[in-house]
Amino acid sequence: MKLKSKISTVSILSLFFIGFMLSCKEQSESPVKEKEISHSGDHPKLILTKSGVEQIRKELGNIPIFDASLAATKEEVDAEIALGIQIPVPKDFSGGYTHARHKRNFLILEKAGLLYQILQDEKYAIYVKDMLFGYEAIYKDLPVHPQTRSYARGKLFWQCLNDSNWLVYVSQAYDCVYDYLSAEEREKLETNLFRPFADYISIDNPQFYNRVHNHSTWGNAAVGMIALVMDDAELLHRALYGLENDGLDANAKDNDGGFIKNEDGKAGFLANLEEPFSPDGYYTEGPYYQRYAMYPFLIFAEALNNVKPELKIFEYKDGVLLKSVSALLNLSDADGDFFPLNDGQKGMSYYSKELVTAVDIAYHHGDKNPGLLSIAEKQERVLLDDAGLAVALGIKNGKAKPFEKKSINLTDGPDGKQGGVAILRDNDIEVVFKYAAQGLSHGHYDKLSFSLYEDGDEVIQDYGLARFVNIEQKGGGNYLKENTTWAKQSIAHNTVIQNETSHFQGKYEIGMKHHSDLSFYDFDNDNIKIVSATEANAYPGTVLHRTMAVITSAGFEKPYVVDLMSVTSDKANQYDFPYYFMGHVMETNFKYNTPSTLKPLGAKNGYQHLFVEGEGKANNDNAQLTWLNLGRFYTLTTVTDKQDDLFFTRIGANDPEFNLRREAAFMIRKKPVKNTVFASVIESHGGYSPVSEFAVNSKSNISELKVIYNDNDYTALSIKDLNGAVKTLIVSNGDASKTASHNLNIEGENIQWTGAYYFK
Amino acid sequence: MKLKSKISTVSILSLFFIGFMLSCKEQSESPVKEKEISHSGDHPKLILTKSGVEQIRKELGNIPIFDASLAATKEEVDAEIALGIQIPVPKDFSGGYTHARHKRNFLILEKAGLLYQILQDEKYAIYVKDMLFGYEAIYKDLPVHPQTRSYARGKLFWQCLNDSNWLVYVSQAYDCVYDYLSAEEREKLETNLFRPFADYISIDNPQFYNRVHNHSTWGNAAVGMIALVMDDAELLHRALYGLENDGLDANAKDNDGGFIKNEDGKAGFLANLEEPFSPDGYYTEGPYYQRYAMYPFLIFAEALNNVKPELKIFEYKDGVLLKSVSALLNLSDADGDFFPLNDGQKGMSYYSKELVTAVDIAYHHGDKNPGLLSIAEKQERVLLDDAGLAVALGIKNGKAKPFEKKSINLTDGPDGKQGGVAILRDNDIEVVFKYAAQGLSHGHYDKLSFSLYEDGDEVIQDYGLARFVNIEQKGGGNYLKENTTWAKQSIAHNTVIQNETSHFQGKYEIGMKHHSDLSFYDFDNDNIKIVSATEANAYPGTVLHRTMAVITSAGFEKPYVVDLMSVTSDKANQYDFPYYFMGHVMETNFKYNTPSTLKPLGAKNGYQHLFVEGEGKANNDNAQLTWLNLGRFYTLTTVTDKQDDLFFTRIGANDPEFNLRREAAFMIRKKPVKNTVFASVIESHGGYSPVSEFAVNSKSNISELKVIYNDNDYTALSIKDLNGAVKTLIVSNGDASKTASHNLNIEGENIQWTGAYYFK
Repeated sequence: MKLKSKISTVSILSLFFIGFMLSCKEQSESPVKEKEISHSGDHPKLILTKSGVEQIRKELGNIPIFDASLAATKEEVDAEIALGIQIPVPKDFSGGYTHARHKRNFLILEKAGLLYQILQDEKYAIYVKDMLFGYEAIYKDLPVHPQTRSYARGKLFWQCLNDSNWLVYVSQAYDCVYDYLSAEEREKLETNLFRPFADYISIDNPQFYNRVHNHSTWGNAAVGMIALVMDDAELLHRALYGLENDGLDANAKDNDGGFIKNEDGKAGFLANLEEPFSPDGYYTEGPYYQRYAMYPFLIFAEALNNVKPELKIFEYKDGVLLKSVSALLNLSDADGDFFPLNDGQKGMSYYSKELVTAVDIAYHHGDKNPGLLSIAEKQERVLLDDAGLAVALGIKNGKAKPFEKKSINLTDGPDGKQGGVAILRDNDIEVVFKYAAQGLSHGHYDKLSFSLYEDGDEVIQDYGLARFVNIEQKGGGNYLKENTTWAKQSIAHNTVIQNETSHFQGKYEIGMKHHSDLSFYDFDNDNIKIVSATEANAYPGTVLHRTMAVITSAGFEKPYVVDLMSVTSDKANQYDFPYYFMGHVMETNFKYNTPSTLKPLGAKNGYQHLFVEGEGKANNDNAQLTWLNLGRFYTLTTVTDKQDDLFFTRIGANDPEFNLRREAAFMIRKKPVKNTVFASVIESHGGYSPVSEFAVNSKSNISELKVIYNDNDYTALSIKDLNGAVKTLIVSNGDASKTASHNLNIEGENIQWTGAYYFK
Repeated sequence: MKLKSKISTVSILSLFFIGFMLSCKEQSESPVKEKEISHSGDHPKLILTKSGVEQIRKELGNIPIFDASLAATKEEVDAEIALGIQIPVPKDFSGGYTHARHKRNFLILEKAGLLYQILQDEKYAIYVKDMLFGYEAIYKDLPVHPQTRSYARGKLFWQCLNDSNWLVYVSQAYDCVYDYLSAEEREKLETNLFRPFADYISIDNPQFYNRVHNHSTWGNAAVGMIALVMDDAELLHRALYGLENDGLDANAKDNDGGFIKNEDGKAGFLANLEEPFSPDGYYTEGPYYQRYAMYPFLIFAEALNNVKPELKIFEYKDGVLLKSVSALLNLSDADGDFFPLNDGQKGMSYYSKELVTAVDIAYHHGDKNPGLLSIAEKQERVLLDDAGLAVALGIKNGKAKPFEKKSINLTDGPDGKQGGVAILRDNDIEVVFKYAAQGLSHGHYDKLSFSLYEDGDEVIQDYGLARFVNIEQKGGGNYLKENTTWAKQSIAHNTVIQNETSHFQGKYEIGMKHHSDLSFYDFDNDNIKIVSATEANAYPGTVLHRTMAVITSAGFEKPYVVDLMSVTSDKANQYDFPYYFMGHVMETNFKYNTPSTLKPLGAKNGYQHLFVEGEGKANNDNAQLTWLNLGRFYTLTTVTDKQDDLFFTRIGANDPEFNLRREAAFMIRKKPVKNTVFASVIESHGGYSPVSEFAVNSKSNISELKVIYNDNDYTALSIKDLNGAVKTLIVSNGDASKTASHNLNIEGENIQWTGAYYFK
């Protein structure tokens, strides 16, 4: 009962606002009739432009990737037209029919609009018009969506986010048929559908609209896109700068546990462009959400650039939007899959439609980077607009070059001072090292964590999110409770865990206040790529300092990974250090017992989700584990004390609905100690083919790994291979500048060097 | 000490035999000098022939796939020549260095011989000659291999099997350089290396040589190949017919637990060709071992055909050798991977070198099947001999056509009367139904088991073997103890298990005496492919009757699988029925509990290797499980009683060295009952893409599954879909002839039909 009365209040409020705005508009701008006269004939102008249409029609049949994209789109839309228009009464969650149908409708509407312009076949305009009037007929009487889970329920969908998706796409369709419709038809659509729609997702839902968050970006872009089509200055202002008085509670949170109210009160598209992107173009929520957010960012930016070029949106914040496309592409593995940092679903890649948009727009509006053309070639499709034409012509004219991904450091934070993400690359090996800020509500408690890839395959995995996006059977396709109890917890990541508690006690409020700090990075040498960072707040009183390097060394078949984590604390603590290796255990150099019944490793903070499959003692100075994955052998060698416990764990305990994947980890546990060092080397070596049945180079090339020095100033590791060759890596724990001179005596030998680290 | 004295006895014995044979030979045949005069200039004659060499040299540069194979081989051999010859003292098991090196040596020797003939570059002949004399220098003083695990230890390798591999390949190399060597050199090689080698693997190891088993096939072929090169009639006789007096114990067994002595005392190549192959070309050990055995079968057959065409070896047993190639290709999935029946390692495929041999020889010596050319195209290489030339020319001349795999029934047993294997195929769906004989020592206790594939991916898996072939870290690359305790046991398969004991009590001696029986099959209809078989001996007093069908039906997106197993017993028993589904649980229609600690399902017969991950009660007439695998949804719907227990299990309990894969099963358990029916439908439906994040058709189309009739005469199942359409399948449990008339009243309706089953 309470809910119902709230809904009607909102509806009445909406109506009030619509009325208010209409009257404002009529007063402040030219009357509708006049506008039509002055603007009719200017459409399309948003994404596809009049001159773009002319050029495209001139080149048609002569631009292979564009022609193919057009043919595929035509086939898809023609099939939908044949099926007929379906506008069901909204009812379902993400995975259900009504959700999927409305989603499909807006995707098809946009495409049909483009087809109308490019093919100049009226049937597409008729389809768009009929569908729009179908929505117009129901919209004003629609209650809020019956599913009550969202902090900001939509009308067509269970959350305003999806309603905003709808408007972003449908604005483009409307732009394409604008001139086809009569003034009366436009008036009707705008009055009954577009304006109330824009108001509902903004004025009626400030908790959704007025944030710095990917949700709001969609909302802002939706309002802005329709504003540009309708030439509505007030709506455009609302899109760019947000609502002035939102009346939001400073402590309110969304469904993901994120704060709604932005600290400095900024909102709107420009604030969303300002805050979550670092100067390097890294988006603080991580690549999965960056990919999702890229579409509204870029499509609205392109529209702004076309309609309001004086805003110079692509130059905003030193060109951050175009930089962000490059950053995002660099956050993918060799197969183009995005690293699943924070809440990221594995398998999402630069083959997604958002990245087709991003790549095409970045090429067209950026510096015509020929590397982007090679990605477009892999995507095998382009946008059916001016940007897509530019890409198609670039490819046709043989301008494509490989998009080279090198080692890269991407800062986090609006000013680039809140840590970052580094990717070390050498040949097929990629180390993703995360020392970033919390990443808003989609962040994980994974300070200084890493993941390892070889040629696009996971070797040491980051679990990603616990969710089956849009699969209705799995919690309606939404976040599962295991995302909180497992996926976000520190133990779910390849980093250190103190006293079985997560970083920042697993509390968003605390995590949001902190970030890790870069110590140094150096990618300029052929034989070593290295990055080093510290974290002083995850566990108050404890400083974590992790250095990761990818090293090419004679005698080793491939580059190997060095992982050096020093822990300094003001009191003794237990430390756990898991490695989520992918594959099948081949061999260990230590003894372990496998229990006949499997019990959880702990009771909370994610530990309740791990079964202990094996337990052993490090009986040696080095513990070694070799495994086989996808035809390649890997060995982890780690420095151990005799009192260290070694565990084999497997994910899946306390998982009553089989929401988690049954994957393994190897974990080192150090008994309570104040200061300690975790030092490991991970090698990729040899391979096995089940067809030839040859096993090649199946063993490690490491004979000894030793921490030869460790204090507040320096941590040093020696790596001896089977031929007796020794490499030494020394990391400065203090001054990490490039120019600092160091002098250290280790085991009787005096070593002098300049810079943050020594390696020889 | 005992071991050592045994070795020297064997060696002395060998020397005795060698001396004996040499003198026999000299008396019965022409003296060596004469032979050389009459035969010199006839080599090569084995696989590559003189006229073949001429033709190849004429076509070189003009036969793309042959040219490419030649270039690849040249590069490989040149690299080995550059490395230099290494003949280490034998020491290691399969995965170790000396094993791998000797294996590589014989593979390279054969290739170098071919290169010498084709390229007429003396360096290859020199390499072969030097390597042969390297072996000649050490062979006569070699003790038996120091690893003692084998029932028949080799000299170069830990088992005679691998020594035989060596001789099969090296005979070909010798043939290629025969004319290059002087008479004295040949005499020295034959006296010190080839003859003693052939004797060692035959006379000195009758327990290896004189069996009907793939091991013996290799031994026979090895002796036969060198016999053909040396033109030695006695050795050839020994190859074809075995040893006459082997002195073998009728109860002795090999390492795999297989009987050594053949019942009827037959041995030699022809006996091995006679017994394990059915008239359809199915090899009783299964495709993995068939693939392994194919090489010696075909290469020796080809050599026999070339040198002794009067034997008409390819016509032997109604052309069974060429039929077996077709059978083997049909025993592969859509990707060309062999179904891992019995002891089969997954991933072995028609891309293996043995299948290159098989395909090329079958094309050249068979009916020039253009489908074989398309497989050769996929293999991207051909043999560097007459057969390879024929294939290369066929491809070049555009004769290749797709190799179409249809539903097929392959009988088992020398006379085709010991059950068989049926593969039901419809579109991308493949059901592999095994109702065969025991399959010798590599057989599993898996009567009436099945596996299900879609487009080359496992949906319901057969576990295959528990072994990492040639990976030294895993038990020397040999069979692991879990192969016996898990992989062979009935519970490891998708079939019925009575009272938690394996078929035939898991005893080879019993299993060898029995086989399942075909009831009927019918692949002639578009909408149903069906096979039905019975097993009366796995559990004395119990008859199992399983019918499997792949059905295409309106309203279903893809063909679905019907699985109908009726069990009739003379007493009440517990029945377990597992389905080893691959993928992630999406949804069930029944409630289950997941235990907080995982315990094994049982204590023996493989049950000790399964953890219980979930347990529920069938609260309904149908239990339903939906899972997601590799982007596709699957649903199993099964008829249940309220008292049935439902389990989720996972492999991996009591696995102290992580030898087993952590994969899942869904299991139905029926409380003690005399007669019962397990009836299920498995659907493949829809899909999910992590890139588009669309979930399509993610739910089952079955509304009700019901056993509507079951007695000694008939079992009937009705399948109702969500639209209310009903299909009925009736299987005759008695007369299964095509002509029998049936008349049955079910639920008041009278149904009449002719033949073994009714479906409408």
